[in-house]
Amino acid sequence: MATALIVLAAGMGTRMNSDLPKVMHQVAGAPLFAHALASGAALSPDRVVLVVGHGAELVEATAKEIDPEISIAVQVEQLGTGHAVQQARAALDGFGGDVFVLYGDTPFIRPETLETMAAARTQGADVVVLGFDAADPGRYGRLIVVDGALDRIVEFKDASADERAVTLCNSGVIAADAGLLFDLLDGVGNDNASGEYYLPDIVSVARARGLTASVVTCDEAETLGINSRAELADAEDVFQTRARDAALEDGVTLIARDTVYFAYDTVIGRDSVIEPNVVFGPGVTVESGALIRAFSHLEGCHVSRGAVVGPYARLRPGAELANDAKVGNFVEIKNAQIEEGAKINHLSYVGDARVGKHANIGAGTITCNYDGVSKHHTNIGARTFIGSNTCLVAPVSVGDEAMTATGTVVTKNVPAGAMAVGRAKMEVKPGLALKLFEKLKAAKARRQKGS
Amino acid sequence: MATALIVLAAGMGTRMNSDLPKVMHQVAGAPLFAHALASGAALSPDRVVLVVGHGAELVEATAKEIDPEISIAVQVEQLGTGHAVQQARAALDGFGGDVFVLYGDTPFIRPETLETMAAARTQGADVVVLGFDAADPGRYGRLIVVDGALDRIVEFKDASADERAVTLCNSGVIAADAGLLFDLLDGVGNDNASGEYYLPDIVSVARARGLTASVVTCDEAETLGINSRAELADAEDVFQTRARDAALEDGVTLIARDTVYFAYDTVIGRDSVIEPNVVFGPGVTVESGALIRAFSHLEGCHVSRGAVVGPYARLRPGAELANDAKVGNFVEIKNAQIEEGAKINHLSYVGDARVGKHANIGAGTITCNYDGVSKHHTNIGARTFIGSNTCLVAPVSVGDEAMTATGTVVTKNVPAGAMAVGRAKMEVKPGLALKLFEKLKAAKARRQKGS
Amino acid sequence: MATALIVLAAGMGTRMNSDLPKVMHQVAGAPLFAHALASGAALSPDRVVLVVGHGAELVEATAKEIDPEISIAVQVEQLGTGHAVQQARAALDGFGGDVFVLYGDTPFIRPETLETMAAARTQGADVVVLGFDAADPGRYGRLIVVDGALDRIVEFKDASADERAVTLCNSGVIAADAGLLFDLLDGVGNDNASGEYYLPDIVSVARARGLTASVVTCDEAETLGINSRAELADAEDVFQTRARDAALEDGVTLIARDTVYFAYDTVIGRDSVIEPNVVFGPGVTVESGALIRAFSHLEGCHVSRGAVVGPYARLRPGAELANDAKVGNFVEIKNAQIEEGAKINHLSYVGDARVGKHANIGAGTITCNYDGVSKHHTNIGARTFIGSNTCLVAPVSVGDEAMTATGTVVTKNVPAGAMAVGRAKMEVKPGLALKLFEKLKAAKARRQKGS
Repeated sequence: MATALIVLAAGMGTRMNSDLPKVMHQVAGAPLFAHALASGAALSPDRVVLVVGHGAELVEATAKEIDPEISIAVQVEQLGTGHAVQQARAALDGFGGDVFVLYGDTPFIRPETLETMAAARTQGADVVVLGFDAADPGRYGRLIVVDGALDRIVEFKDASADERAVTLCNSGVIAADAGLLFDLLDGVGNDNASGEYYLPDIVSVARARGLTASVVTCDEAETLGINSRAELADAEDVFQTRARDAALEDGVTLIARDTVYFAYDTVIGRDSVIEPNVVFGPGVTVESGALIRAFSHLEGCHVSRGAVVGPYARLRPGAELANDAKVGNFVEIKNAQIEEGAKINHLSYVGDARVGKHANIGAGTITCNYDGVSKHHTNIGARTFIGSNTCLVAPVSVGDEAMTATGTVVTKNVPAGAMAVGRAKMEVKPGLALKLFEKLKAAKARRQKGS
Repeated sequence: MATALIVLAAGMGTRMNSDLPKVMHQVAGAPLFAHALASGAALSPDRVVLVVGHGAELVEATAKEIDPEISIAVQVEQLGTGHAVQQARAALDGFGGDVFVLYGDTPFIRPETLETMAAARTQGADVVVLGFDAADPGRYGRLIVVDGALDRIVEFKDASADERAVTLCNSGVIAADAGLLFDLLDGVGNDNASGEYYLPDIVSVARARGLTASVVTCDEAETLGINSRAELADAEDVFQTRARDAALEDGVTLIARDTVYFAYDTVIGRDSVIEPNVVFGPGVTVESGALIRAFSHLEGCHVSRGAVVGPYARLRPGAELANDAKVGNFVEIKNAQIEEGAKINHLSYVGDARVGKHANIGAGTITCNYDGVSKHHTNIGARTFIGSNTCLVAPVSVGDEAMTATGTVVTKNVPAGAMAVGRAKMEVKPGLALKLFEKLKAAKARRQKGS
Repeated sequence: MATALIVLAAGMGTRMNSDLPKVMHQVAGAPLFAHALASGAALSPDRVVLVVGHGAELVEATAKEIDPEISIAVQVEQLGTGHAVQQARAALDGFGGDVFVLYGDTPFIRPETLETMAAARTQGADVVVLGFDAADPGRYGRLIVVDGALDRIVEFKDASADERAVTLCNSGVIAADAGLLFDLLDGVGNDNASGEYYLPDIVSVARARGLTASVVTCDEAETLGINSRAELADAEDVFQTRARDAALEDGVTLIARDTVYFAYDTVIGRDSVIEPNVVFGPGVTVESGALIRAFSHLEGCHVSRGAVVGPYARLRPGAELANDAKVGNFVEIKNAQIEEGAKINHLSYVGDARVGKHANIGAGTITCNYDGVSKHHTNIGARTFIGSNTCLVAPVSVGDEAMTATGTVVTKNVPAGAMAVGRAKMEVKPGLALKLFEKLKAAKARRQKGS
């Protein structure tokens, strides 16, 4: 059956105490609403509508980057979840099939849960509501089930003592036929204390029309919604705990489990070892059998089998380490191919470059890729030996099996097998250091006397 | 009413297993007794007396740095808390008003709690004692309240079964009129197992004279006293948890809450983002909308709106980053103004310097601020382009819109708009690398054969 | 009495999801089986037999590195713990005395526990079994004690309801006379569901012969066995928690206890301070009164009294810091003696070197110890001043009280008191920077137009 997704992402999130729209705050390196989109993607939706409001332009721009096909509906005033869903009506004009309503501040709904809801629709329920058994139901809306079917959703403040004793609570996630959904919403009023249109009210409207509703339940943890930065931090913890457990299960060694931070899309191969205090930003893949040493920071990069990274290595977007490559301490790699067995062990910056197989890059090497206006490329050949403190002024290339002398500024291409030398001859000035020490001390004494 | 503070800071802290006096051990970058002083500061005390003993000189020197007006009283022998307070008598000679007794190893008493005690004094109690309802009263002294007033304080070992069942315990913190306090202390003896003079005994003395005593209660967590390094580590955890929660509440994003360490005086603006593994030493202010990336370390510095720090940036005391300044990986900044939009992205040391607006400082740049004897200043103009691996030998200045060529050692001033060049011309020696590799391998083979 | 140790280390550890044999996975920087060997070392065993199977070659090679005297027995097929112990029979040929059977995947048995087992043997029990009182006995084998003696060990699946109610469980660790042990094993069959020979079955065989068995109990935590990477991570946590508590007890300050990672053999002196996020690899000793600052990484090194390391310092094997030496941020030290009071404060690599007393090594200093084929030594004298960005091309030496000018490449020895200078004279080209900026911008504009 055709499926559409509506993700509500218009709220301000006052309790976040932020100028940033709530759904733009991140968990695991992705904005909250992107997690909801990723959950919904399990349904292979034919249409996706994001309902935006606060910070609409920023949310829209970010959403289009994630999914250029996404439809955007703007909710100018925030008049309740029912009103928000109504804003998606035009974007779904002509769509026939099921609609799932998700929330941009609820990042953890599992794909399997949505598939169960889809199955419940197939089995005939006109409206399917996602509920959860709350450990502490507090002020959640209660799902009142009668004879196995959902009879009504009662807001906490309107609930009787018996109803409050019910622990089955409303997550807000709902599925229904698109046409029916909007029909039912037309029957929902705003005659309540807040003057808002509530999406859950469609259940009463449906029941009044003799239609059926059913409940699918999920783990309470899936329904975690983010309303404050403390809850955001909690959500990050939840994500990280799951990601770490999954990595261990997949055969990754995490020496100090709680100090490794994953992004939403991190992929680590079996029998890789991750030492303490490693941070993975978005876009990282690490093959099997790699070693990521302590205090390393990786973003948008690929690390191949047998490669060793760190400690204190920073791999920035576009860093690609081939098999057995080695990037050591205080080294930054950006947009560079480090080929098989190449070594960059210490204190270097290699950006916009290719480093050939088995090249050895000395400590303090810098690719001068920026001239103040543009960026340029550096090409370093296989089996080269780049002496310490070499600067490679891009665009420039060093041929296979070439060398550069320590301290050379490489300003023109170096042919294969050649040596590039560019440094002043060292001279020894006997006794000068002693004289200089004396002079400096005397100058200091004069200054101190004068002051 | 005039108020004085007595802070007891003479104890050795045997269980700390340390040569350092107990109150000099730190929580959140400040010695324990400084936290007690900070609590007491809420009372705007007219006089503050610190009673020192073990490590008296070090504690006194540190205290004078924090508050040059502080009075120091030395307790040569440690004969109990009553005896310790007696040592402050001379320092308070002529003082009329209330005295609060706090403890140098008890860092978490909230200012509000002391204000409540002050109010209780105003309401007429002659002696006000701070108590807490203990989850596990253990061997704490018990506060015995009769008809709403404090009747007596019973040491655990002297308590009856009924008294031991009381969970209201003595924190040790006491407030009373100065004259009365010392009068009462004169009535306290040392006829007990330890042969010590106990401050809490003033309650019995007061009651015997027909005076009144009352109890103010606080949260047990406030009364946490430090007696071992494990308790010190616990106290640090307590502090950090509170500081992180407060930061989140204030609108700061902490990506990985538990990996951010604050100092006692850290200030972070709303909508700043702090990535995992960031350590704030004392004296740091971060304005709204700054980004502190992973693995950064900040002390005594200021970061303005829109600035980006790290990953792996170290800001040392005197580092001041203006709006939109950027300090990147493996960069150390000390005592330097980094003006608006200036960038120091990689592997640099900038100390005792000014970097002008929108300057671009290349990778590997070093301000050579130390000549072996003295420190000197470097002045880098606006919109300059400092080439990679430039050394600036201070004192030196580079004018606005000047450049330095890669690898230049700048030994004299560079006028505005000029280029400074100082490097040997690079020469290519065809085939030399290949020959050299052969030679080195042969030499190695000979050495191995010989060994 | 003569004592032998049999450590069973043949298992594959399917649940580890790893190509590495289970016992090679590490806790605190040492393979699991090494922890079992270390526990057993408390008994000063005359013979140690490691029974290997999966990954036999790797385990054997690693074991021989740890203890060249160790005997290796290979269990080709894994037919149960009884069968595994049988494989050690040949290696113990001619041995008379007690045998203790330990497990290569059970790293936390305390030496004291084994000593208690030895005492129980001395007191006459023919077979001594190590048990523990399980919080949740689950599917552990139960130890059935009758009249104070061990009557039998019942597998969970064979246990009656009464037997399942017993919480005294079998750790698997067993001690007996060598001759008796192998005799009893000959009486053990494999007539069970798995078709395996179970070591605990020797208890029934012994009892059937009228011999006595007794139980020694230990804390359940000691018996923690590792079967998955999650359990491995748990074990690491257990180790680290104990190590941190022990360090605090020993008078070490850990500012942020939970962020410090110790190796199995780390030694830290009293009144040393360890800041947040410090990782100790194997082989580190830190004397009293040293300061290890945040984000430091130490392996195989020695830090003396008063030395300061970090933040962001990496000490690699062979780094030796004398009293009051200082190694600062983004500095890597390898195989080098840093003598008293010497300072290497910023962005340097010092490897295969000696740095003399009170030398000052400028920022960006690099010892070029590798020529592409071999490693060479650098010798830096006392009270030298090495200017920033100095490269020392080893083998080379700098005499006492010598200096190097900023940016010098030191290619030959520098006598004491001399100054080494090797750099191009800086020239100023007035107005050239402005022209160059214009030219670069124009070139960029042309490229963009062309593209």
